[in-house]
Amino acid sequence: MKKGGILLAATGWDSALWSRMFTDAAPGRQVFVDPDGRTDDSVDYAIVWKQPAGSLAGLKNLKVIFSLGAGVDHVFRDPLVPDVPIVRVVSNDLTNRMSEYVVWQVLDHHRMGPKYRRQQQDAIWLEDRSQPAAKDITIGMLGLGVLGSDAAMKLKVMGFNVTGWSRSHHHLDGIPTFHGQEQMPAFLAGVDMLVCLLPLTPATANMLAMPMFEMMTKRGPLGAPVLINAGRGGLQNEKDILAALDIGTLSAVSLDVFQQEPLPVDSPFWSHPKVTLTPHAAAASDPFSLVKPIVDQMDAFDRGEPLRNLVDRKHQY
Amino acid sequence: MKKGGILLAATGWDSALWSRMFTDAAPGRQVFVDPDGRTDDSVDYAIVWKQPAGSLAGLKNLKVIFSLGAGVDHVFRDPLVPDVPIVRVVSNDLTNRMSEYVVWQVLDHHRMGPKYRRQQQDAIWLEDRSQPAAKDITIGMLGLGVLGSDAAMKLKVMGFNVTGWSRSHHHLDGIPTFHGQEQMPAFLAGVDMLVCLLPLTPATANMLAMPMFEMMTKRGPLGAPVLINAGRGGLQNEKDILAALDIGTLSAVSLDVFQQEPLPVDSPFWSHPKVTLTPHAAAASDPFSLVKPIVDQMDAFDRGEPLRNLVDRKHQY
Repeated sequence: MKKGGILLAATGWDSALWSRMFTDAAPGRQVFVDPDGRTDDSVDYAIVWKQPAGSLAGLKNLKVIFSLGAGVDHVFRDPLVPDVPIVRVVSNDLTNRMSEYVVWQVLDHHRMGPKYRRQQQDAIWLEDRSQPAAKDITIGMLGLGVLGSDAAMKLKVMGFNVTGWSRSHHHLDGIPTFHGQEQMPAFLAGVDMLVCLLPLTPATANMLAMPMFEMMTKRGPLGAPVLINAGRGGLQNEKDILAALDIGTLSAVSLDVFQQEPLPVDSPFWSHPKVTLTPHAAAASDPFSLVKPIVDQMDAFDRGEPLRNLVDRKHQY
Repeated sequence: MKKGGILLAATGWDSALWSRMFTDAAPGRQVFVDPDGRTDDSVDYAIVWKQPAGSLAGLKNLKVIFSLGAGVDHVFRDPLVPDVPIVRVVSNDLTNRMSEYVVWQVLDHHRMGPKYRRQQQDAIWLEDRSQPAAKDITIGMLGLGVLGSDAAMKLKVMGFNVTGWSRSHHHLDGIPTFHGQEQMPAFLAGVDMLVCLLPLTPATANMLAMPMFEMMTKRGPLGAPVLINAGRGGLQNEKDILAALDIGTLSAVSLDVFQQEPLPVDSPFWSHPKVTLTPHAAAASDPFSLVKPIVDQMDAFDRGEPLRNLVDRKHQY
């Protein structure tokens, strides 16, 4: 039986590389790079990363859209995205990398990395015996999907207190969880560091803003709370972050994502002494690790098996 | 029955603070701060941190020496240290803190912290998709005692390959181990990062030197290997470390300990672009967490129970 074709519809990525990888991994399937060569009925499966608006609209045999990222906000930015199942990428590789970033940044704040780097620059030897233990610090995880749960468990192994918040209830062993807007204030009041791994949806856009920062009332051993955002730039109000740093509502932030990427050269974030920034590099996945799980899902779907890691269209994640 | 007295013999620490804590924690025991007030037969137990040479020599009732640190090299620097059992401090607090430091520094190199900080300084946004996954990196742990084993297991949870070396054979689940001088070359040849948590003894002094660096022949995804030393400064040949960095035998080092502490202001380490340094702060223990386990051991010894965490006098650790 002839296998259905694949359309790669992406912007900002190396389409030729991806095309070669899917051609190798999916023998028997034609691989098209949008808009070249595809016809309206030649494509069963679309693989997208910020697809050009309308690029999927006319594909009358389209069965499934696969997002080449854990976040799928980029898929919904296209108003003409067809009403077929959307599958997010879930890979151990991506999950591990995100947890690496989270544990790295949490430890860098906890272990006073910025302070020790300034002391090194100034050739100052200053032992500080007042450093808190991990068990004295509570890390609040915003978002308890595959990524948030994995990062939370790894922080727990490192000895931190960990709590979590998600839209709907999640149970995690040994980690107190909160859910829904009504439990947000209680969650925020207890955190020394807030780690955001939420998806960007109409409900979460602009959420990391002053009203939330003001609910982070704990003043633990590190002083005012720390914010770490590795979700999406659209989750954060950047003016409010700067204001919160300046008035001391937040003591420091680590940001991997920004409203505008690349971050403009005149952004005050670059040189702000309380900001650690990385160029959307928290979980840059190995392309090879993503290709096979996607191709396997296509073959499974052809055999009538159910899809995994489906996106909830209503909540857009 | 009258309980035996305690002598605190330390330099460089806040003796008054420690004296108060032991007085509170050990009711019924007299607490002396060397050399004040003690007589030759008033002391059953000595608690030491770099004790003044000879300060324990005349204590004819001395039963046990407790070291206020995991390393005990400072105890043996005193040629007149009496021949009684020596107990090292082992506390979950200290173990956790050391593992925090190790995971923090490993992640900082693995996730290219120094590079991203330079890019931030220069307002450069440069996504780098060639970053290796943790599973592509092998961390070699030198020293598999309580500290090394805990750090190794936590690195494993983070997804790294971990191997270990110790003087005598140790078994760790899921972690290939090497032992003895004859297996050192095979161990070193496989590591991308070498983490040293060895004790300082006559056998290990000056061990981290060019002959060892030259055995680290792997050139993995990070290039030349990285060295992280949180053991003792006496383990490292500092001229060789600088030479190895300059000729590229090592790509970077993180040092928490130095031959001379505080590190002299004219040390080239301060400003070396491939050096991350911290002021012997890897595992600055909470004093409160150490006091009770020591007092509990004194009471247990008085009841005739065996001592735990005994130091091997022959190997001096």
